[in-house]
Amino acid sequence: MNSSIIRYILGNVIKIEAVLLFFPCIISLIYKEDEGIFYLIVSIIMLILGNLMTYKKPKNNVFYLKEGCITTALSWILLSFFGCLPFVLTKEIPSFTDALFETISGFTTTGASILSDVEALSHCSLFWRSFTHWIGGMGVLVFLLAIVPLSGGSNMNLMRAESPGPSVGKLVPKIRYTARILYLIYLGMTIIEFIFLVAGHMPIFDALATSLGTAGTGGFGIKNDSMGSYSPYIQWVVTIFMILFGVNFNAYYLMLFDNIKKALSIEEVRYYFIIIAVAILIIFCEILDTTTGAFESLTQASFQVASIITTTGYATVDFNLWSQSSKTILVMLMFIGACAGSTGGGIKVSRFITTAKTMIKELNSYIHPKSVKKIKMDGKPIEHYVVRATNVYFITFILLFAVSIFAISFDDNDLITNFTAVAATINNIGPGLEMVGPTQNFSIFSPLSKYVLMFDMLAGRLELFPLLILFYPAVWKELFNRKRHAR
Amino acid sequence: MNSSIIRYILGNVIKIEAVLLFFPCIISLIYKEDEGIFYLIVSIIMLILGNLMTYKKPKNNVFYLKEGCITTALSWILLSFFGCLPFVLTKEIPSFTDALFETISGFTTTGASILSDVEALSHCSLFWRSFTHWIGGMGVLVFLLAIVPLSGGSNMNLMRAESPGPSVGKLVPKIRYTARILYLIYLGMTIIEFIFLVAGHMPIFDALATSLGTAGTGGFGIKNDSMGSYSPYIQWVVTIFMILFGVNFNAYYLMLFDNIKKALSIEEVRYYFIIIAVAILIIFCEILDTTTGAFESLTQASFQVASIITTTGYATVDFNLWSQSSKTILVMLMFIGACAGSTGGGIKVSRFITTAKTMIKELNSYIHPKSVKKIKMDGKPIEHYVVRATNVYFITFILLFAVSIFAISFDDNDLITNFTAVAATINNIGPGLEMVGPTQNFSIFSPLSKYVLMFDMLAGRLELFPLLILFYPAVWKELFNRKRHAR
Repeated sequence: MNSSIIRYILGNVIKIEAVLLFFPCIISLIYKEDEGIFYLIVSIIMLILGNLMTYKKPKNNVFYLKEGCITTALSWILLSFFGCLPFVLTKEIPSFTDALFETISGFTTTGASILSDVEALSHCSLFWRSFTHWIGGMGVLVFLLAIVPLSGGSNMNLMRAESPGPSVGKLVPKIRYTARILYLIYLGMTIIEFIFLVAGHMPIFDALATSLGTAGTGGFGIKNDSMGSYSPYIQWVVTIFMILFGVNFNAYYLMLFDNIKKALSIEEVRYYFIIIAVAILIIFCEILDTTTGAFESLTQASFQVASIITTTGYATVDFNLWSQSSKTILVMLMFIGACAGSTGGGIKVSRFITTAKTMIKELNSYIHPKSVKKIKMDGKPIEHYVVRATNVYFITFILLFAVSIFAISFDDNDLITNFTAVAATINNIGPGLEMVGPTQNFSIFSPLSKYVLMFDMLAGRLELFPLLILFYPAVWKELFNRKRHAR
Repeated sequence: MNSSIIRYILGNVIKIEAVLLFFPCIISLIYKEDEGIFYLIVSIIMLILGNLMTYKKPKNNVFYLKEGCITTALSWILLSFFGCLPFVLTKEIPSFTDALFETISGFTTTGASILSDVEALSHCSLFWRSFTHWIGGMGVLVFLLAIVPLSGGSNMNLMRAESPGPSVGKLVPKIRYTARILYLIYLGMTIIEFIFLVAGHMPIFDALATSLGTAGTGGFGIKNDSMGSYSPYIQWVVTIFMILFGVNFNAYYLMLFDNIKKALSIEEVRYYFIIIAVAILIIFCEILDTTTGAFESLTQASFQVASIITTTGYATVDFNLWSQSSKTILVMLMFIGACAGSTGGGIKVSRFITTAKTMIKELNSYIHPKSVKKIKMDGKPIEHYVVRATNVYFITFILLFAVSIFAISFDDNDLITNFTAVAATINNIGPGLEMVGPTQNFSIFSPLSKYVLMFDMLAGRLELFPLLILFYPAVWKELFNRKRHAR
């Protein structure tokens, strides 16, 4: 195991976060808040630590998938650890466990909060919460790849470990340029949303926090009622941008640098829009008589469907009060999630397409046992290893899901609360139903349950295996054996 | 498609059921009940129909997996259709939908009832309900194979379609003898349980119904409180036999004709007992202060754990009142289910073992990408197609599960009721939680939801694909095309 490159990359990650912590400092200067000083202190400590860790360049730049996974998992844990310190130091979230929960929830773009009164937070802390969504949405290692020169083609393994979806493609031959293009599209769309929001007379700070949260498909609100008190115009802007950030970014690349027809022909994107349309239609009909009119129904149905399927988690109404069938649709959308290669979470539409096709192939094999047709996506055959990985992903997901529900059941909350709490964290959504519904928060859980849910958030964001690998003893044995060897 | 062999086998199935319907007639003679006449009428009609269908022998005895699946699915649908007629004719369950639900629940060994007062039923109907469990437990086609000579080795495809578990092995080279051995073990164990129950002063009729229901891992009670009012001795006998009927029958074959050591070394059986022991231990600790003492706690915990993991569904207490963690354990056991090759339902322990090993292999592939180790079970490598089939099974199961919950959500019952109703039917258990808890019944659902749950029961018993294949248009196209050809 190449442990020196792991150290080197982790050092760089810490340096990047140190620089990102300047942004809340600036916000605190604008609003003349004392809390900014703590962000500065943490930032300076991290700069020193980061520089110490990157002082010695690694002898060997080659690293494989295992190093990629371990680096990614450790990066996210370090990011969250340091990122939560300002909350503790400012005493805005005095408990370390709660602060860590809030920060992991931020970076993993979950948006589940332990705060009952978010409006009490300082502007710089509110900004930092929403900013973590933005950082986590596209991924800090993708950012690192975009700016730090890492020689060797093996840095693809970093990208593979951090990016969502069953198979990660390079847009252009060079990883570095792929990463840059992704971040430019991401930044561009965030700015466009910000402009649209400000144009609708949303206060600038609110517009900033909201667009950061939408872009990362995070969902931390800066109001106690999430997005409920904003105008329908603003709600529609957010709805549309939530849906857009849930689209596979390859589609945007194709639109910008190739042709729109190609972009629209991506199978996953098509199904994504179909699912959204069907869900909105059913819920629209179901809530029609609880609202003042068709427009309000459409606004509410669209917002909630977009918020849940993209795993953002903003809310404009308390959907916990909706009918069982509407709630069941929302729970199903929680698992489906957004497109692969977007900033959204969940199992991903493409995995469901692959799975549905596998099932049809299985049925077909009963009738034509000797047929060897390959499953196709976008006209091209899906590689065998992608089908296998998708199946294994599904099953691992289900098992982790079941174990998590069991682990948090000792708090003696009802089964729906537990079920949807795990669903909302592992799929990086935010709110669930009942006691973790949109008007509630996650403070009801015991510390142990909170750590289980934190694990689920990280596992969901990193798509299970890069995190689970940390618990595989062979990895640690190898890591330490090699170190001893090196001496 | 060889449709004449399908007709021929279906005719035989109908004849077998006609003969089996004599048994409730005998019971009605003993108890001098008028209801028996209706069983006789249905039986005679079926005998005539069955003989008409088997009058012309098929030209060609060869049939493949698709014919096996279709025959199996249609057999079970016919069995249930005819089997429910006496309930309707005797007016004990006047609604056809309800009677069909009860019968499918019987044959699939689910044990979910729509009756609120089972004690009002006549003895012959009570007996028929329990007898359907016994018939469905080992499977009517396996019975057919044991008695009707079907030439050609392809009758393995019938057995494969009806028997539970990811891979069906022949105990002895001839299918016919395999089927006979299975039925003899089955019958023998049922009789032993009956003797133990009668020895504990259980009334003979009760002992008969209870042993039939235990053997098939069915769960229809003949008392309104299921097994709650029987003595601890009787409860323990039932507990032990439920567990025994959930064991892979290969183990019994090995015990009888080979050696015990080999039987005990079956990996699935070992894990099955470990899971049971752990579940009992945890629940025992959790309910300790709600009972009068350790013995009662142990009795209750053991009974409920055995009842749920073997998917029998008898109850001695209202476990809906237990703590969330105990209920969560029960829900998890619902999905795990019994061993493959037993009469129990659920996903099966062996599928979980295969899956867990697949996950570990996947983790391993991150560290040693070039390793090509095969997954092993009982020391032998698992064939690639079994791993794949297990994965596809899991995923199809989950999707069918989600669609079913959605379909029944329009009744507007709470999510736990819907979730556990689907879990209890698709896994062939019987009771769920909340409104379908052990003291409740399934009469709350609308007719549409009842049909969805009936479908789930059949899909669960036939392990999905043999039933799903009926909904695959290509099958029907082929069936009718060939017919036209034959003319």
